[in-house]
This record gives sequence, C-alpha cells and structure tokens, in this order.
Amino acid sequence: MSGHNAITDVAGVRVGHHHRIGDGWLTGTTVVLTPDGAVGGVDCRGGAPGTRETDLLDPSNLVERVQAVCLTGGSAYGLAAADGVMRWLAERGLGFRVGAQPHEVVPIVPAAVLFDLPAGQWGNRPDAGFGFLACEAATDEQPAQGCVGAGAGAITGGLQGGIGTASVVTASDHTVGALVAVNAAGSAVDPGSGMPWAADHEVDGEFGLRSPEPRDVGAAAGSPLNTTIGVIATDAGLGKAQCRRLAGAGHDGLARAVRPAHTMADGDTLFALATGTEPVTDHRVLDELCAAAAECVARSVVHGVLAATAVPGSDVPAYRDRYPPVGSAGCGRGT
Amino acid sequence: MSGHNAITDVAGVRVGHHHRIGDGWLTGTTVVLTPDGAVGGVDCRGGAPGTRETDLLDPSNLVERVQAVCLTGGSAYGLAAADGVMRWLAERGLGFRVGAQPHEVVPIVPAAVLFDLPAGQWGNRPDAGFGFLACEAATDEQPAQGCVGAGAGAITGGLQGGIGTASVVTASDHTVGALVAVNAAGSAVDPGSGMPWAADHEVDGEFGLRSPEPRDVGAAAGSPLNTTIGVIATDAGLGKAQCRRLAGAGHDGLARAVRPAHTMADGDTLFALATGTEPVTDHRVLDELCAAAAECVARSVVHGVLAATAVPGSDVPAYRDRYPPVGSAGCGRGT
Repeated sequence: MSGHNAITDVAGVRVGHHHRIGDGWLTGTTVVLTPDGAVGGVDCRGGAPGTRETDLLDPSNLVERVQAVCLTGGSAYGLAAADGVMRWLAERGLGFRVGAQPHEVVPIVPAAVLFDLPAGQWGNRPDAGFGFLACEAATDEQPAQGCVGAGAGAITGGLQGGIGTASVVTASDHTVGALVAVNAAGSAVDPGSGMPWAADHEVDGEFGLRSPEPRDVGAAAGSPLNTTIGVIATDAGLGKAQCRRLAGAGHDGLARAVRPAHTMADGDTLFALATGTEPVTDHRVLDELCAAAAECVARSVVHGVLAATAVPGSDVPAYRDRYPPVGSAGCGRGT
Repeated sequence: MSGHNAITDVAGVRVGHHHRIGDGWLTGTTVVLTPDGAVGGVDCRGGAPGTRETDLLDPSNLVERVQAVCLTGGSAYGLAAADGVMRWLAERGLGFRVGAQPHEVVPIVPAAVLFDLPAGQWGNRPDAGFGFLACEAATDEQPAQGCVGAGAGAITGGLQGGIGTASVVTASDHTVGALVAVNAAGSAVDPGSGMPWAADHEVDGEFGLRSPEPRDVGAAAGSPLNTTIGVIATDAGLGKAQCRRLAGAGHDGLARAVRPAHTMADGDTLFALATGTEPVTDHRVLDELCAAAAECVARSVVHGVLAATAVPGSDVPAYRDRYPPVGSAGCGRGT
C-alpha cells in the first residue's frame, strides 16, 4: 500500500463525501475530484446501471479529460447530484473549454448510481446540493470509509456495505488507487468461513482479521439493495482506451471480492482516471497497472465491509459486530 | 406519411416542448413521452455526446421499458432537464417498479443534449423545470417544428436548425415516426443546388420545394454549434436489441440528410422506442422498419430546417428566408 492506502494517494485526486443519515434519510454522494483534469474511461458490467456521461468516455470520442466522477445513492434520481458537481466546477472555471472566456466551460462529470431507496424514507434522495457539498468537502487526505457518502445506505449480502478505498505502488513506480461504494446484490463474505472473499488480497495486515467462527450472515440472497460503483485512479499517463482497459480490470477485482458479482440487479460500473503525463507505451506496464487495479478494487471492497457500522433504525448487522475485529493479526499474504 | 406526419402518429407517443427565447435566452427541451412505457434502444455515433441513462438500454441489461426520452439544449448542463422529466413521471407513479407501493417507481428517462450554449447568454440553459414543463405540454397532436423545444437555439451549416418530425406507414402496416433536433456541425443543404440533401426522400409533396437558385449559405463550416439528437418510434413490438438496430438505422438517415454527419464535434445520438406488443420475428419486417426509420430521420431533418425561422438577435438566416417557399410544387419521388 502507499501513503493513506487510499485513492487520494494518486497525485491530483481528491475525495469528498456528503450524506444525510437520520430523520428518514440514509443516502449520500461521493465525488472523486480531479480539478486539473484526468483522462477517463469506464466499464459498465452490471445488468441494471444508472449512469450519466459514459458515452463520451468511448475511446473514439472527442473529450479526453474529466474533472470529476460522481458516485451517488438515490438510484436514477441521484443522477441529479452530478448537476451540483458541475456547478461547483463551473464556478471555478474548471471543465472543457467551449468559448474564449475562462468561465465558458462545460465540466465533464461522469456519474453512476446505486440503489438504496428503501434505506430511507421514500423521496429522500441526493439532489444537486449533495454533489455540490461533496465537492466542498473534498480533500487529498484519507477519505472516510464505511457508511458515508454514496455508501451511507449501502448493504451487501445481508451486511452493511459502504465506501472502501485502497492503493498500491507498482513495480514501475506508479501509484494505483481505488474507491468503491459496495452495495452488491451478492455477498462480500464467504458464509462458510466468515472471511471476506478477497481477504487473501491483504497487504501489510491492512484488514486486521483473524479467521472468525463461521456464522450464517442471514439475508444474503435477494437483497433489494444492489450495485457496486467505483473509481480507479493512477498517476500513469494513460490514454482513453487504456483507461477503459484499467476500468475493465477493476471488474476482475469485483469478481473476486463479491459473489455473485455483476448480476442483472446490479448496476456495477467502474470508472478509471489517469492523472499522469508520461505515456505508457509498454503493454507490460499497462498489464501491471491493470493487475494493481483489480487488487485495489478487491481490497477496497473488503475495507468497505470492514469499515461499515450498524446504522440506527436498521436491523442489518455490520461485519465488525458480527465478527468483532481482533487486532492486527493479519490473514493475507502481505503479512 | 401517416396522420400528422409526425412521431405522435405512433400509438402511445406524446411530444412536448418547453423553451425560453429572448431576454438572453435561446434554448429549450423536448420530451418524447411514452407514459405506458416503451421498449427502448439507443445508438450514439457522434464524437462528442452528452448523455444519460444510455447504458441501461444495452440489450443485455435488465430494464426493458422507458417512460420518456429527454432531448435538450444546454450541453451537459442540460442533462438536469431529465431530473424534471423524472419528477413529472414519478408524481404520476410512472416508472420502473421498485417497491410494493404504487408510488415506489424509478422513471426511466434516457437523455441526450445538443450544444447551443453560445446561442443565449452564458448561464442560461435548461434546468429540471424545463423537463417538467415539457411534460406538461406534451400531447399526441402534431408537435411544433423549427425553433422550438430542444431546437430553439439550433443551427446547422450556417442556417437555423430546429425540430423536425415525420412518419410513415410500412407495407407491414406498422407506423414508424421520427423526431430530431437538427444542430449538426455539417450542413443539411447542398450548397451547389440549394436543395436539402435529403429532398429526394420527400413523400406526398411534404416539403413544398422547387429547385432554388444556388446560393452560398455562408458559414457552413466550423459552426461552434453542433449535435443532432432524436427519437425513432414504432408501434411494432420490438425487443431491446431490435430497438438498438432501429436506432442504428436512423443514423443512416442522418448520414443522407447531413454532410458531414457524425463528426468529432457532434454528439449525434438517436433513441428508438417500440410501443407495440406483437413481437416481430421476421427479419424482413425488421429491415422494413429500419429502412422506414432511416427515411423518417432524413425527412425529419429536412422538416427541421424548412420549419426553422429567423431568431431575433441572431444573424443566422433561416432556409425559408434564404430560399423562400414556393407553394406545393414538390420535388421528391412521392409527388
């Protein structure tokens, strides 16, 4: 892992959350902000996506750089949060230049949603204000994980889901980071062992797990809440087509960390952002970045589930309560 | 042509416009409303698209039916108009059911934008209210054409662009209709002859054109305004994959009517909606529908340019002023 073990270890990447929890609210928005622009890609592999501005990320299309990715609860209603992210960026003159004046920009803000509508009272979902306030909160520090931002109302496999992040420095000295909002229809935990499916991806004892007692985690199947969305970032100088490949590789990490992943009820969508300027021309380096993307996504899923906490008014247990943490005894190959 | 010679000839399809023209405003929103739901598809072929909810239309994905398509000015800022379309539908319990209660729906509203920002004062672009009011205005009558709705600020090839629509009844007795907002970077008019490129697609003298004097239409190249967006509808019972094919066929019509079409500066995106229930299992029937889609799109482009009018405060001429209409003398094969 590097620095904060977070996507914000990638130069030029900031993360902000905004959520409302309580009084009938349980939803939020997370923005991954690249104010200086980042080359972007996307791979949408879930069967029930809710997205915005993904077509422009096709490698054959014009716009290269995005200023932010908006991840949000609220199902398709939550796409409104991206309006607020655009406003925040536009007020700062950040976006695709479309005129002679500095303020004449169109901020490029791809977005994806997750389905958390039953978590709160009907009608309480993110609007443009959530996106704006998530930008206001963005920093390059370690982002909060668990039931925050877009992960506020997340559930996965009968346990609380949430936001998770992780990073790594590759052999070619590139930093790769991921941030996901885990709300999968499937489970992130092996019901036979009680261990997260991706526990073996652990680096440097980051999960702090010891083999727990096997326990039935209950309503894993048929959860009405679903979709894992996320962002992979790197300081390598990837082009758009390479970013699409990086996003696709991230889905391998999702496949390892969530079972089943990519169901018809999931809108699983991963974006990739590249902030570097030095082109990557050796496909072995790209493969290395892709392998790192898969591992960071898998580790982020585990962190999201480990960081999630019980939510007042919800009877969905958190992993940390079901399987109390036992200190720093690592279980992964990194220990 | 059928009935109104409009997309509203297709059973179950309504169209509404909302725009602001004057006082620094020149933009708007058009909604193609299918309140009972329609199977949807999309094909995005421009190099600079601005879209929303297109991924769910992938034939391998879950959601089959959409309640509306939102076409709007305002570049990516205009995607906010779809929020208002969602609100209008949600207030009526129209959408994808996600709960036991009738109001627990998520309206499915794919959207695409066109770039008209320089047409009005900076900052004046469609918001959610535009989408809501376009729904309020929707009827199954013949929609207004020209500089209305999403076509309010449209320009193409140095002439005013705008909204155009057309329909046809096929040999298999299906109605196919199209509606487009013509704002192409390319031109819809042959500069050599002054005739619309797609004039030969005319049916029953609908264009009312006679060969005009060739005239240089001026600033055809390098217009900063661009993107043609639209919807094809049919009362055939197509599936999602068939709808995608229908949308793709529509781009053939765009290719005939606009030269060049699908440039890197265009976000050309066409949606297809099928309101029927009887499956189409004979691929010859699908081919017939696709040919009709291409022709309806081409004819719609011509109608959009012919219906456009000069706009106060703009020095862009309208085709009708440049080449005054000369009554009912037809020029096409339908006469």
